Amino acid sequence: MRAAVVNSFSEPLAIEERPIPEPGPGQIRIRIETSGVCHTDIHAARGDWPVKPVMPLVPGHEGVGIVDALGEAVTRVSIGQRVAVPWLGGADGTCEFCVKGMETYCVSPTFTGYTVDGGYREYSVANADFVGVVPDSVDPLDAAPLTCAGVTTYKAVKTARVGPSDVVGIVGIGGLGHLGLQYAGIAGAFTVAIDVDDAKLDLAKRLGAEHVINAARQDVVQEMHALGGADAIVSTAATPAPLSAAFASLRPAGRLVLVGLPAENVFPLPIFETVLRGIHVIGSLVGTREDLAEVFELHAAGRTRVELETRRLEQVNECFDDVLAGRVTARLVLDLR
Amino acid sequence: MRAAVVNSFSEPLAIEERPIPEPGPGQIRIRIETSGVCHTDIHAARGDWPVKPVMPLVPGHEGVGIVDALGEAVTRVSIGQRVAVPWLGGADGTCEFCVKGMETYCVSPTFTGYTVDGGYREYSVANADFVGVVPDSVDPLDAAPLTCAGVTTYKAVKTARVGPSDVVGIVGIGGLGHLGLQYAGIAGAFTVAIDVDDAKLDLAKRLGAEHVINAARQDVVQEMHALGGADAIVSTAATPAPLSAAFASLRPAGRLVLVGLPAENVFPLPIFETVLRGIHVIGSLVGTREDLAEVFELHAAGRTRVELETRRLEQVNECFDDVLAGRVTARLVLDLR
Amino acid sequence: MRAAVVNSFSEPLAIEERPIPEPGPGQIRIRIETSGVCHTDIHAARGDWPVKPVMPLVPGHEGVGIVDALGEAVTRVSIGQRVAVPWLGGADGTCEFCVKGMETYCVSPTFTGYTVDGGYREYSVANADFVGVVPDSVDPLDAAPLTCAGVTTYKAVKTARVGPSDVVGIVGIGGLGHLGLQYAGIAGAFTVAIDVDDAKLDLAKRLGAEHVINAARQDVVQEMHALGGADAIVSTAATPAPLSAAFASLRPAGRLVLVGLPAENVFPLPIFETVLRGIHVIGSLVGTREDLAEVFELHAAGRTRVELETRRLEQVNECFDDVLAGRVTARLVLDLR
Amino acid sequence: MRAAVVNSFSEPLAIEERPIPEPGPGQIRIRIETSGVCHTDIHAARGDWPVKPVMPLVPGHEGVGIVDALGEAVTRVSIGQRVAVPWLGGADGTCEFCVKGMETYCVSPTFTGYTVDGGYREYSVANADFVGVVPDSVDPLDAAPLTCAGVTTYKAVKTARVGPSDVVGIVGIGGLGHLGLQYAGIAGAFTVAIDVDDAKLDLAKRLGAEHVINAARQDVVQEMHALGGADAIVSTAATPAPLSAAFASLRPAGRLVLVGLPAENVFPLPIFETVLRGIHVIGSLVGTREDLAEVFELHAAGRTRVELETRRLEQVNECFDDVLAGRVTARLVLDLR
Repeated sequence: MRAAVVNSFSEPLAIEERPIPEPGPGQIRIRIETSGVCHTDIHAARGDWPVKPVMPLVPGHEGVGIVDALGEAVTRVSIGQRVAVPWLGGADGTCEFCVKGMETYCVSPTFTGYTVDGGYREYSVANADFVGVVPDSVDPLDAAPLTCAGVTTYKAVKTARVGPSDVVGIVGIGGLGHLGLQYAGIAGAFTVAIDVDDAKLDLAKRLGAEHVINAARQDVVQEMHALGGADAIVSTAATPAPLSAAFASLRPAGRLVLVGLPAENVFPLPIFETVLRGIHVIGSLVGTREDLAEVFELHAAGRTRVELETRRLEQVNECFDDVLAGRVTARLVLDLR
Repeated sequence: MRAAVVNSFSEPLAIEERPIPEPGPGQIRIRIETSGVCHTDIHAARGDWPVKPVMPLVPGHEGVGIVDALGEAVTRVSIGQRVAVPWLGGADGTCEFCVKGMETYCVSPTFTGYTVDGGYREYSVANADFVGVVPDSVDPLDAAPLTCAGVTTYKAVKTARVGPSDVVGIVGIGGLGHLGLQYAGIAGAFTVAIDVDDAKLDLAKRLGAEHVINAARQDVVQEMHALGGADAIVSTAATPAPLSAAFASLRPAGRLVLVGLPAENVFPLPIFETVLRGIHVIGSLVGTREDLAEVFELHAAGRTRVELETRRLEQVNECFDDVLAGRVTARLVLDLR
Repeated sequence: MRAAVVNSFSEPLAIEERPIPEPGPGQIRIRIETSGVCHTDIHAARGDWPVKPVMPLVPGHEGVGIVDALGEAVTRVSIGQRVAVPWLGGADGTCEFCVKGMETYCVSPTFTGYTVDGGYREYSVANADFVGVVPDSVDPLDAAPLTCAGVTTYKAVKTARVGPSDVVGIVGIGGLGHLGLQYAGIAGAFTVAIDVDDAKLDLAKRLGAEHVINAARQDVVQEMHALGGADAIVSTAATPAPLSAAFASLRPAGRLVLVGLPAENVFPLPIFETVLRGIHVIGSLVGTREDLAEVFELHAAGRTRVELETRRLEQVNECFDDVLAGRVTARLVLDLR
Repeated sequence: MRAAVVNSFSEPLAIEERPIPEPGPGQIRIRIETSGVCHTDIHAARGDWPVKPVMPLVPGHEGVGIVDALGEAVTRVSIGQRVAVPWLGGADGTCEFCVKGMETYCVSPTFTGYTVDGGYREYSVANADFVGVVPDSVDPLDAAPLTCAGVTTYKAVKTARVGPSDVVGIVGIGGLGHLGLQYAGIAGAFTVAIDVDDAKLDLAKRLGAEHVINAARQDVVQEMHALGGADAIVSTAATPAPLSAAFASLRPAGRLVLVGLPAENVFPLPIFETVLRGIHVIGSLVGTREDLAEVFELHAAGRTRVELETRRLEQVNECFDDVLAGRVTARLVLDLR
């Protein structure tokens, strides 16, 4: 089978021929249909973050496909089912965070496409207990971005405690943001899309944003306060630059939820304003299996729309270039069918 | 009557003779018995913060005394009752934040000793609806620090969602911190006192801290992780310096609650760690009237102990010097009786 | 001016000529345009509840109209504004519940159309701080039912902690339920309408219910469990009969929120099932001023639709008859213009 | 080895000689030291509840002992460790409730001493992932009641959202209640013990109860309202009788948490008062592994005290008689050492 492999942080991915993997106990094998390209894959492939993945690595944590072999003792899924293999490839199930319902903060997690090989290949293996079951009515192309971009922003919206009539800003209308915007709307918010690209803001409008702000041309803080200020803002931005304006756009008791992971790592938090206005700045990391199930359920019910463009596995390096250059409207998905 | 008055941000306070004030409609007059000295009073007197108080100003938002005159239409308190006049001197009662139970974030608040004259005087006036009623068994000297240092850290502990068996760090064991430590303990936490001064850490131990860390000599992050990491940390520090260690001491899903207002205003928040570990950084501003009532109730029940030294009104400028020099164990209280 | 007056619990209301009332300090006078008819008005007029209103009484707590006179010291609203006078006519603003953001549980409340005269008259007076400001784009006919039926079910949906992808049942698709259904949908739920009347279930479908159950013909528990069980159910029913099926329809950790006030007062709660499945049964009383503001905001944004029929003040007794006979699709509104 | 066995719902338990069990994959074998006697064991042995256990049954879900054999693939605990085997003997780890942190509501749970054999025997086997690790400083006699009576009331106190200064009533000062009382105190509450037995109320006082009410002689509702009413009440009662008084003793927004499982199954809930006062009635079932870990942590820190009497395995039938006759001060523990 073919796989896109990172052999070194400084080289492009290589398309290699590899043996089809066998599922171990508790694992399943999936014939991958689609695999989303996330900015995190680029960070993994380049070793951008403090803890580096081990080489060689097959990235990809939005792999979707059909179960075609079961390892020992697997009963949760069956052959022929469509599943998704998310970032959280496994968790110990017994640590404080797992037991408390916060499995994404497990003390001994497996991260798909980072600590184990991921979905940029024709066949993948995964922990049967941690795959998401994709409802029949969800297109496998749509399922891919939902598996990370979807669940991450869905969880962020929950973390931001968004409810009816809240004014909620979404910073960055890309792969994550265009879904986050929809989840905030589903939770009842009046949504405000913030980006520097008019094409993305147009997309936001088509997806139901009540307001859009072009941060390149408009004063975000002033525009948000003209709307009464934001109850919550979810930032998917890949640089810390927009965070200061987002922070200053919040109303008292407002929540700024961070999901983007900029290479430049520092947000200069104004202490006085944080205290005087009771601001919450909160990090949110992907989502649990239950969050993913809800994401699929909402999509199956027709409540979300995924913007994506398809590519072939062989195009993975140009996908990375396009993402880095900001040439992608929302999400690229490798179609391996 | 005598009052300690700020006439200019660059001069010491003057002890002046002033007419005894008359309560307006909805107000009461209080014969002040005690008045706590808070670092905020120094910020007010020096114009340290973005929004400046108007001169001349009588500072003080921990004034405690006996009601001796009622303005028109006052029924909530009666002559002879002991009351406390907190930082939140008034709120509109109708804005979103008041109605939601977050009156400290009211859109048109009155701040005692800042936007109106406060408790550094023999008689003060206050909005009858916003004074705290001091239970008979609470000593007026104790009541003063409880009125701001107490309620502020009590609210911070609530904001930090502290519960039984949590490990909770308190940064800075001064006027605020020595009370915050006790409130975290009352809420069931295992408490860790963090300071650079052994005398303050000894006080912390006497007040029930399970652990103490001298940040001048010990590695806070390492010590906290030896305890399993902190579920929550309340920082009362007057500089941003300890915040980075506090942040790094948190466990996943940990809460860092800021109540101190450093002149140097920026905390460099690490974005990656915030996201990967689901950290919450939250500002908390004083507390509501209900929080104050609970603070008094706990003290009346013998569950808290207030560390203080008394001074005379005339010593107000040396009080400020002592606070700034870090020569105060916990709280200074002006005794005007 | 004309007013509909209860002179005795055993007689119909009388249409009487009365002097136009003058607003006292803190009050406003409203030229009533519309006034909704709530089942509670019937309970008031008949003395159905333990605490009886004092005779003579003008019922009505969904009065909407134009401010035409201001009492002393009123600044919150101005002449010419459209306002709504809700059930919570006043609260003390200082008790624990007011301060905590739960003003509907104030220890010394005023209830419009119950402890003071309400909106069944051409001119009414009200506490200026407690009226709801009606946005320009909200029709005064719509505003009336939103003022109680709307805010009550909106709050119930909040109390039920409804969020995206929850399955939420609404028992009784009348004046309250047809709005509650929409609020649950706005909060992201999959909604299930439960009633015994097909016309009401058709209305529910038109208002966006994903599922409907006719409790007269279908087994509610079985139907709900076919949908996976309910995460929450809001019961607006005027009898306790449907509560047992609602209870049994809940999933583990499910919430049953009661807002209806049956004359027959007892719900036989199964203890074993409550414990084994971690069920929450919660009462919810109208909503706060902030809830009402949000209700109006959502309607102004076009997110809700109010089903109503208009009547004249003189028809008030036949309105009561129609409500009691179940002949009303959703809400009757007296048009006094 | 010896085991106490239920062979029929209508006969006493038989002490039988059985082979020492072998741990299967993922299981451990425990040499039982102590085993608490819970009222639930009696319900199990008599088939009191709707779903019956299969005969023959070894009851007991407070078994504590030393790991002496590991099944295949066990890494979480090691031979020689002291562990406790709680009611929740296993959960699937993948259902919505497990993933959300509510494993006690798992859709396919194992219940120790009910759906599988429990701790009334010299050697037991258990799912390694679900045993509680007992800290060295916790006495195995104390550990037994903490394993169910402790964790159940600890969780109930959390479910009741008890915090500092709340007034919290505990109904029934037996095996569960005497611990619940302490947990409410640890969470900062002012505690009120309610029982009909002065000996139990004396125990409550020694354990720190601020107030005690003898429901046989005093009017519970009146006494509680003299204290301002209860913010929360945890009922461990084995009959529904005390629930009505508990309900009526609550303040607005008060929580009544049910953990006891009376044979007589109905609590007649007053609907009007539930709505008008915003009451919450909540069921709470044992606690999670994390709750149990916290319970042990608090006991290891010296914050709780367990009242118990020890008996021999052969005395199990007289234990049941004593429990049913109300002759037990707090908890009976079988000592199998």
